[in-house]
Amino acid sequence: MNFLEERILKDGIVKEGNVLKVDSFLNHQMDVALLDEIGKEFHRRFADKQITKVLTIEASGIAIAYAVARCFGVPMVFAKKAKSINIDGDVYTAEVESFTHKNKNMVLVSKRFLSAEDKVLIVDDFLANGCALQGLISITEAAGASVEGIGIAVEKGFQYGGRSIRNLGYHLESLAIVESMDPKNKTVVFREQV
Amino acid sequence: MNFLEERILKDGIVKEGNVLKVDSFLNHQMDVALLDEIGKEFHRRFADKQITKVLTIEASGIAIAYAVARCFGVPMVFAKKAKSINIDGDVYTAEVESFTHKNKNMVLVSKRFLSAEDKVLIVDDFLANGCALQGLISITEAAGASVEGIGIAVEKGFQYGGRSIRNLGYHLESLAIVESMDPKNKTVVFREQV
Repeated sequence: MNFLEERILKDGIVKEGNVLKVDSFLNHQMDVALLDEIGKEFHRRFADKQITKVLTIEASGIAIAYAVARCFGVPMVFAKKAKSINIDGDVYTAEVESFTHKNKNMVLVSKRFLSAEDKVLIVDDFLANGCALQGLISITEAAGASVEGIGIAVEKGFQYGGRSIRNLGYHLESLAIVESMDPKNKTVVFREQV
Repeated sequence: MNFLEERILKDGIVKEGNVLKVDSFLNHQMDVALLDEIGKEFHRRFADKQITKVLTIEASGIAIAYAVARCFGVPMVFAKKAKSINIDGDVYTAEVESFTHKNKNMVLVSKRFLSAEDKVLIVDDFLANGCALQGLISITEAAGASVEGIGIAVEKGFQYGGRSIRNLGYHLESLAIVESMDPKNKTVVFREQV
Protein backbone atom coordinates (compact mmCIF):
# COMPACT_ATOMS: atom_id res chain seq x y z
CA MET A 1 0.00 0.00 0.00
CA ASN A 2 1.45 3.40 -0.94
CA PHE A 3 1.42 6.68 1.00
CA LEU A 4 -1.75 7.99 -0.64
CA GLU A 5 -3.72 4.78 -0.15
CA GLU A 6 -2.67 4.80 3.50
CA ARG A 7 -3.78 8.39 3.88
CA ILE A 8 -7.16 7.67 2.28
CA LEU A 9 -7.74 4.82 4.72
CA LYS A 10 -6.73 7.06 7.61
CA ASP A 11 -8.54 10.31 6.73
CA GLY A 12 -10.86 9.63 3.79
CA ILE A 13 -14.59 9.53 4.47
CA VAL A 14 -16.91 7.19 2.58
CA LYS A 15 -20.40 8.55 1.93
CA GLU A 16 -23.54 7.22 0.30
CA GLY A 17 -23.65 7.55 -3.49
CA ASN A 18 -20.05 6.46 -4.09
CA VAL A 19 -18.68 9.68 -2.68
CA LEU A 20 -15.17 9.53 -1.23
CA LYS A 21 -14.35 12.67 0.70
CA VAL A 22 -10.67 13.52 0.81
CA ASP A 23 -11.31 17.15 1.62
CA SER A 24 -9.28 17.19 4.84
CA PHE A 25 -6.01 16.63 2.93
CA LEU A 26 -6.44 16.80 -0.86
CA ASN A 27 -9.12 19.12 -2.19
CA HIS A 28 -10.36 21.65 0.31
CA GLN A 29 -7.83 21.60 3.11
CA MET A 30 -4.52 20.52 1.59
CA ASP A 31 -1.61 18.79 3.26
CA VAL A 32 1.41 20.36 1.60
CA ALA A 33 3.81 17.58 2.59
CA LEU A 34 1.46 15.07 0.95
CA LEU A 35 1.28 17.24 -2.18
CA ASP A 36 5.08 17.38 -2.30
CA GLU A 37 5.13 13.59 -2.08
CA ILE A 38 2.56 13.28 -4.89
CA GLY A 39 4.70 15.57 -7.04
CA LYS A 40 7.80 13.44 -6.47
CA GLU A 41 5.93 10.21 -7.14
CA PHE A 42 4.59 11.38 -10.53
CA HIS A 43 8.04 12.70 -11.40
CA ARG A 44 9.42 9.24 -10.66
CA ARG A 45 6.74 7.47 -12.70
CA PHE A 46 7.17 9.72 -15.76
CA ALA A 47 10.93 10.24 -15.40
CA ASP A 48 11.60 8.85 -18.89
CA LYS A 49 9.41 11.51 -20.55
CA GLN A 50 10.73 14.89 -21.70
CA ILE A 51 7.85 16.84 -20.16
CA THR A 52 7.68 20.53 -21.13
CA LYS A 53 4.39 21.43 -19.48
CA VAL A 54 2.04 20.16 -16.80
CA LEU A 55 -1.65 20.70 -17.56
CA THR A 56 -4.60 20.50 -15.19
CA ILE A 57 -8.06 21.97 -14.66
CA GLU A 58 -9.17 24.32 -11.91
CA ALA A 59 -9.59 24.20 -9.01
CA SER A 60 -8.29 21.27 -6.99
CA GLY A 61 -5.92 20.06 -9.71
CA ILE A 62 -3.87 23.23 -9.41
CA ALA A 63 -1.95 22.31 -6.27
CA ILE A 64 -1.09 18.86 -7.60
CA ALA A 65 0.00 20.33 -10.93
CA TYR A 66 2.25 22.79 -9.13
CA ALA A 67 3.78 19.98 -7.05
CA VAL A 68 4.50 17.96 -10.21
CA ALA A 69 5.73 20.92 -12.28
CA ARG A 70 8.22 21.85 -9.53
CA CYS A 71 9.80 18.41 -9.83
CA PHE A 72 10.08 18.61 -13.61
CA GLY A 73 11.17 22.27 -13.54
CA VAL A 74 8.56 23.24 -16.16
CA PRO A 75 5.58 25.63 -16.17
CA MET A 76 2.11 24.45 -15.28
CA VAL A 77 -1.05 25.55 -17.04
CA PHE A 78 -4.55 25.18 -15.70
CA ALA A 79 -7.65 25.09 -17.90
CA LYS A 80 -10.11 27.73 -16.77
CA LYS A 81 -13.82 27.28 -16.35
CA ALA A 82 -16.09 29.86 -17.98
CA LYS A 83 -15.12 32.97 -19.82
CA SER A 84 -13.14 35.68 -18.10
CA ILE A 85 -12.61 39.19 -19.43
CA ASN A 86 -8.90 38.62 -18.91
CA ILE A 87 -8.70 35.78 -21.44
CA ASP A 88 -8.09 36.56 -25.10
CA GLY A 89 -10.48 35.14 -27.66
CA ASP A 90 -7.65 32.97 -28.90
CA VAL A 91 -8.31 29.87 -26.84
CA TYR A 92 -8.66 26.11 -27.08
CA THR A 93 -11.94 24.99 -25.55
CA ALA A 94 -13.66 21.80 -24.45
CA GLU A 95 -16.97 21.10 -22.77
CA VAL A 96 -16.62 19.23 -19.51
CA GLU A 97 -19.29 17.66 -17.34
CA SER A 98 -18.59 17.55 -13.61
CA PHE A 99 -19.50 14.42 -11.67
CA THR A 100 -19.21 16.32 -8.39
CA HIS A 101 -21.17 19.42 -9.33
CA LYS A 102 -23.61 17.82 -11.78
CA ASN A 103 -23.19 20.58 -14.34
CA LYS A 104 -21.36 21.37 -17.57
CA ASN A 105 -18.59 23.87 -17.98
CA MET A 106 -16.75 25.20 -20.95
CA VAL A 107 -13.06 25.00 -20.11
CA LEU A 108 -10.39 26.87 -21.98
CA VAL A 109 -6.64 27.24 -22.37
CA SER A 110 -5.08 30.23 -24.10
CA LYS A 111 -3.37 29.27 -27.35
CA ARG A 112 -0.29 31.12 -26.13
CA PHE A 113 0.42 28.43 -23.54
CA LEU A 114 0.24 25.21 -25.54
CA SER A 115 2.08 24.66 -28.80
CA ALA A 116 2.84 21.79 -31.16
CA GLU A 117 6.28 21.43 -29.53
CA ASP A 118 4.85 20.76 -26.07
CA LYS A 119 5.11 17.38 -24.39
CA VAL A 120 2.34 17.47 -21.85
CA LEU A 121 1.78 15.66 -18.59
CA ILE A 122 -1.88 15.99 -17.61
CA VAL A 123 -2.68 15.71 -13.90
CA ASP A 124 -5.78 15.92 -11.74
CA ASP A 125 -6.92 14.99 -8.27
CA PHE A 126 -9.82 12.71 -9.24
CA LEU A 127 -10.78 10.48 -12.16
CA ALA A 128 -14.34 9.15 -12.26
CA ASN A 129 -16.15 9.19 -15.59
CA GLY A 130 -13.18 10.88 -17.23
CA CYS A 131 -14.95 13.94 -18.64
CA ALA A 132 -12.45 16.47 -17.29
CA LEU A 133 -9.57 14.36 -18.58
CA GLN A 134 -11.11 13.96 -22.02
CA GLY A 135 -11.45 17.74 -22.17
CA LEU A 136 -7.79 18.23 -21.28
CA ILE A 137 -6.69 15.59 -23.80
CA SER A 138 -8.80 17.22 -26.50
CA ILE A 139 -7.32 20.66 -25.74
CA THR A 140 -3.77 19.26 -25.80
CA GLU A 141 -4.33 17.55 -29.12
CA ALA A 142 -6.05 20.61 -30.60
CA ALA A 143 -2.77 22.43 -29.90
CA GLY A 144 -0.86 19.72 -31.79
CA ALA A 145 0.98 18.92 -28.56
CA SER A 146 1.53 15.35 -27.37
CA VAL A 147 0.01 13.78 -24.27
CA GLU A 148 3.07 12.10 -22.75
CA GLY A 149 1.22 10.84 -19.73
CA ILE A 150 -1.63 11.31 -17.32
CA GLY A 151 -1.25 11.34 -13.54
CA ILE A 152 -4.24 11.02 -11.25
CA ALA A 153 -4.24 11.02 -7.47
CA VAL A 154 -7.46 9.05 -6.87
CA GLU A 155 -9.20 6.99 -9.55
CA LYS A 156 -12.63 5.51 -9.01
CA GLY A 157 -11.94 2.16 -10.61
CA PHE A 158 -15.62 1.17 -10.62
CA GLN A 159 -16.46 4.02 -13.02
CA TYR A 160 -15.52 3.83 -16.68
CA GLY A 161 -13.19 6.84 -17.02
CA GLY A 162 -9.90 5.10 -16.36
CA ARG A 163 -10.67 2.08 -18.52
CA SER A 164 -11.72 4.11 -21.53
CA ILE A 165 -8.65 6.33 -21.33
CA ARG A 166 -6.32 3.32 -21.02
CA ASN A 167 -8.14 1.67 -23.93
CA LEU A 168 -7.32 4.72 -26.03
CA GLY A 169 -3.64 3.96 -25.42
CA TYR A 170 -2.76 6.74 -23.00
CA HIS A 171 -0.21 6.12 -20.28
CA LEU A 172 -2.36 6.70 -17.22
CA GLU A 173 -0.97 6.37 -13.72
CA SER A 174 -3.28 6.60 -10.73
CA LEU A 175 -1.73 6.62 -7.29
CA ALA A 176 -4.81 5.07 -5.71
CA ILE A 177 -7.50 3.13 -7.58
CA VAL A 178 -10.61 2.60 -5.53
CA GLU A 179 -12.29 -0.69 -6.50
CA SER A 180 -15.15 -0.44 -4.08
CA MET A 181 -16.37 1.53 -1.10
CA ASP A 182 -18.84 0.59 1.59
CA PRO A 183 -20.45 3.57 3.33
CA LYS A 184 -21.99 1.30 5.97
CA ASN A 185 -18.75 -0.26 7.17
CA LYS A 186 -16.62 2.74 6.15
CA THR A 187 -14.29 0.55 4.13
CA VAL A 188 -12.34 1.22 0.93
CA VAL A 189 -10.83 -1.50 -1.24
CA PHE A 190 -7.97 -0.52 -3.59
CA ARG A 191 -6.98 -2.23 -6.82
CA GLU A 192 -3.65 -4.06 -6.48
CA GLN A 193 -1.01 -2.30 -8.55
CA VAL A 194 2.54 -3.43 -9.27
CA MET B 1 12.23 46.99 -7.60
CA ASN B 2 11.53 43.43 -6.40
CA PHE B 3 11.42 40.18 -8.40
CA LEU B 4 7.64 40.31 -8.98
CA GLU B 5 7.61 43.95 -10.11
CA GLU B 6 10.43 43.13 -12.52
CA ARG B 7 8.50 40.16 -13.86
CA ILE B 8 5.34 42.24 -14.34
CA LEU B 9 7.30 44.82 -16.34
CA LYS B 10 8.86 42.03 -18.42
CA ASP B 11 5.84 39.79 -19.08
CA GLY B 12 2.70 41.60 -17.88
CA ILE B 13 0.35 42.97 -20.51
CA VAL B 14 -1.58 46.21 -19.97
CA LYS B 15 -5.05 46.30 -21.55
CA GLU B 16 -7.81 48.87 -21.79
CA GLY B 17 -10.13 49.04 -18.78
CA ASN B 18 -7.39 48.81 -16.13
CA VAL B 19 -6.74 45.16 -16.93
CA LEU B 20 -3.27 43.85 -16.14
CA LYS B 21 -2.71 40.42 -17.64
CA VAL B 22 -0.21 38.28 -15.77
CA ASP B 23 -1.56 35.07 -17.21
CA SER B 24 1.74 33.93 -18.71
CA PHE B 25 3.32 33.47 -15.28
CA LEU B 26 0.82 33.91 -12.43
CA ASN B 27 -2.78 32.92 -13.06
CA HIS B 28 -3.22 30.72 -16.13
CA GLN B 29 0.25 29.51 -17.00
CA MET B 30 2.27 29.49 -13.80
CA ASP B 31 6.00 29.83 -13.34
CA VAL B 32 6.75 27.47 -10.49
CA ALA B 33 10.11 29.06 -9.65
CA LEU B 34 8.36 32.43 -9.32
CA LEU B 35 5.69 30.85 -7.09
CA ASP B 36 8.42 29.35 -4.90
CA GLU B 37 9.94 32.81 -4.61
CA ILE B 38 6.58 34.36 -3.69
CA GLY B 39 6.14 31.71 -0.99
CA LYS B 40 9.55 32.49 0.50
CA GLU B 41 8.96 36.23 0.41
CA PHE B 42 5.65 36.02 2.30
CA HIS B 43 7.25 33.66 4.78
CA ARG B 44 9.96 36.26 5.35
CA ARG B 45 7.45 39.11 5.73
CA PHE B 46 5.26 37.23 8.23
CA ALA B 47 8.07 35.34 9.97
CA ASP B 48 7.15 36.79 13.38
CA LYS B 49 3.61 35.34 13.23
CA GLN B 50 2.72 31.85 14.50
CA ILE B 51 0.72 30.93 11.41
CA THR B 52 -1.28 27.69 11.70
CA LYS B 53 -3.15 27.86 8.39
CA VAL B 54 -2.96 29.56 5.01
CA LEU B 55 -6.34 30.49 3.53
CA THR B 56 -7.14 31.48 -0.05
CA ILE B 57 -9.96 31.34 -2.58
CA GLU B 58 -10.12 29.24 -5.72
CA ALA B 59 -8.76 29.18 -8.32
CA SER B 60 -5.59 31.17 -8.93
CA GLY B 61 -4.90 31.75 -5.24
CA ILE B 62 -4.37 28.02 -4.71
CA ALA B 63 -0.85 27.81 -6.11
CA ILE B 64 0.31 30.85 -4.13
CA ALA B 65 -1.27 29.48 -0.96
CA TYR B 66 0.52 26.18 -1.48
CA ALA B 67 3.84 27.97 -2.01
CA VAL B 68 3.36 29.94 1.21
CA ALA B 69 2.03 27.01 3.26
CA ARG B 70 5.09 24.93 2.28
CA CYS B 71 7.36 27.55 3.81
CA PHE B 72 5.39 27.70 7.06
CA GLY B 73 4.91 23.92 7.18
CA VAL B 74 1.15 24.28 7.77
CA PRO B 75 -1.94 23.15 5.84
CA MET B 76 -3.61 25.40 3.32
CA VAL B 77 -7.36 25.74 2.87
CA PHE B 78 -9.09 27.19 -0.14
CA ALA B 79 -12.59 28.66 -0.04
CA LYS B 80 -14.77 26.99 -2.66
CA LYS B 81 -17.14 28.71 -5.00
CA ALA B 82 -20.70 27.37 -5.20
CA LYS B 83 -22.12 24.31 -3.53
CA SER B 84 -20.66 20.90 -4.17
CA ILE B 85 -22.30 17.63 -3.23
CA ASN B 86 -19.03 16.74 -1.50
CA ILE B 87 -19.26 19.57 1.04
CA ASP B 88 -21.13 19.08 4.30
CA GLY B 89 -23.81 21.56 5.28
CA ASP B 90 -21.59 22.66 8.11
CA VAL B 91 -19.79 25.53 6.39
CA TYR B 92 -18.83 29.16 6.82
CA THR B 93 -20.02 31.22 3.87
CA ALA B 94 -19.54 34.67 2.38
CA GLU B 95 -20.83 36.31 -0.77
CA VAL B 96 -18.05 37.53 -3.04
CA GLU B 97 -18.27 39.71 -6.13
CA SER B 98 -15.64 39.12 -8.79
CA PHE B 99 -14.10 42.14 -10.52
CA THR B 100 -12.74 39.89 -13.26
CA HIS B 101 -15.83 37.84 -13.94
CA LYS B 102 -18.45 40.49 -13.10
CA ASN B 103 -20.56 38.09 -11.08
CA LYS B 104 -21.29 37.07 -7.50
CA ASN B 105 -20.34 33.79 -5.92
CA MET B 106 -21.14 32.23 -2.60
CA VAL B 107 -17.84 30.96 -1.23
CA LEU B 108 -17.55 28.49 1.60
CA VAL B 109 -15.12 26.82 3.94
CA SER B 110 -16.00 23.70 5.89
CA LYS B 111 -16.18 24.36 9.63
CA ARG B 112 -13.88 21.38 10.13
CA PHE B 113 -10.93 23.30 8.69
CA LEU B 114 -11.00 26.58 10.63
CA SER B 115 -11.24 26.80 14.40
CA ALA B 116 -10.95 29.46 17.10
CA GLU B 117 -7.34 28.34 17.70
CA ASP B 118 -6.24 29.07 14.14
CA LYS B 119 -3.88 31.91 13.30
CA VAL B 120 -4.57 32.52 9.65
CA LEU B 121 -2.51 34.02 6.86
CA ILE B 122 -4.83 34.95 3.99
CA VAL B 123 -3.24 35.06 0.52
CA ASP B 124 -4.44 35.76 -3.01
CA ASP B 125 -3.00 36.64 -6.39
CA PHE B 126 -4.89 39.92 -6.94
CA LEU B 127 -6.43 42.65 -4.82
CA ALA B 128 -8.64 45.20 -6.56
CA ASN B 129 -11.88 46.21 -4.83
CA GLY B 130 -11.18 43.73 -2.03
CA CYS B 131 -14.40 41.72 -2.21
CA ALA B 132 -12.70 38.33 -2.22
CA LEU B 133 -10.49 39.35 0.69
CA GLN B 134 -13.42 40.69 2.71
CA GLY B 135 -15.14 37.33 2.21
CA LEU B 136 -12.08 35.45 3.46
CA ILE B 137 -11.70 37.79 6.46
CA SER B 138 -15.37 37.36 7.31
CA ILE B 139 -15.10 33.57 7.11
CA THR B 140 -11.97 33.57 9.30
CA GLU B 141 -13.62 35.73 11.93
CA ALA B 142 -16.84 33.71 11.83
CA ALA B 143 -14.65 30.75 12.86
CA GLY B 144 -13.32 32.78 15.78
CA ALA B 145 -9.83 32.47 14.25
CA SER B 146 -7.47 35.44 13.99
CA VAL B 147 -6.30 37.07 10.77
CA GLU B 148 -2.57 37.34 11.42
CA GLY B 149 -1.80 38.83 8.05
CA ILE B 150 -2.76 39.14 4.41
CA GLY B 151 -0.38 38.54 1.52
CA ILE B 152 -1.24 39.68 -1.99
CA ALA B 153 0.88 39.22 -5.09
CA VAL B 154 -0.48 42.14 -7.15
CA GLU B 155 -2.53 44.98 -5.68
CA LYS B 156 -4.24 47.56 -7.85
CA GLY B 157 -3.38 50.61 -5.75
CA PHE B 158 -5.78 52.85 -7.67
CA GLN B 159 -8.77 50.79 -6.52
CA TYR B 160 -10.05 51.06 -2.97
CA GLY B 161 -9.61 47.47 -1.73
CA GLY B 162 -6.13 47.80 -0.25
CA ARG B 163 -6.82 51.13 1.44
CA SER B 164 -10.02 49.99 3.10
CA ILE B 165 -8.42 46.79 4.40
CA ARG B 166 -5.41 48.68 5.79
CA ASN B 167 -7.79 51.22 7.37
CA LEU B 168 -9.46 48.34 9.18
CA GLY B 169 -6.10 47.63 10.82
CA TYR B 170 -5.10 44.44 9.02
CA HIS B 171 -1.46 43.77 8.26
CA LEU B 172 -1.59 43.66 4.47
CA GLU B 173 1.54 43.04 2.41
CA SER B 174 1.37 43.32 -1.38
CA LEU B 175 4.45 42.34 -3.33
CA ALA B 176 3.60 44.72 -6.17
CA ILE B 177 1.24 47.70 -5.87
CA VAL B 178 0.26 49.11 -9.26
CA GLU B 179 -0.35 52.87 -9.00
CA SER B 180 -1.20 53.40 -12.64
CA MET B 181 -1.18 51.68 -16.00
CA ASP B 182 -1.16 53.12 -19.47
CA PRO B 183 -2.49 50.75 -22.15
CA LYS B 184 -1.33 53.11 -24.92
CA ASN B 185 2.32 53.25 -23.91
CA LYS B 186 2.23 49.81 -22.22
CA THR B 187 3.64 51.22 -19.01
CA VAL B 188 3.07 50.25 -15.38
CA VAL B 189 3.98 52.47 -12.42
CA PHE B 190 4.43 50.80 -9.03
CA ARG B 191 4.02 52.39 -5.60
CA GLU B 192 7.35 52.84 -3.84
CA GLN B 193 7.53 50.49 -0.86
CA VAL B 194 10.16 50.39 1.86
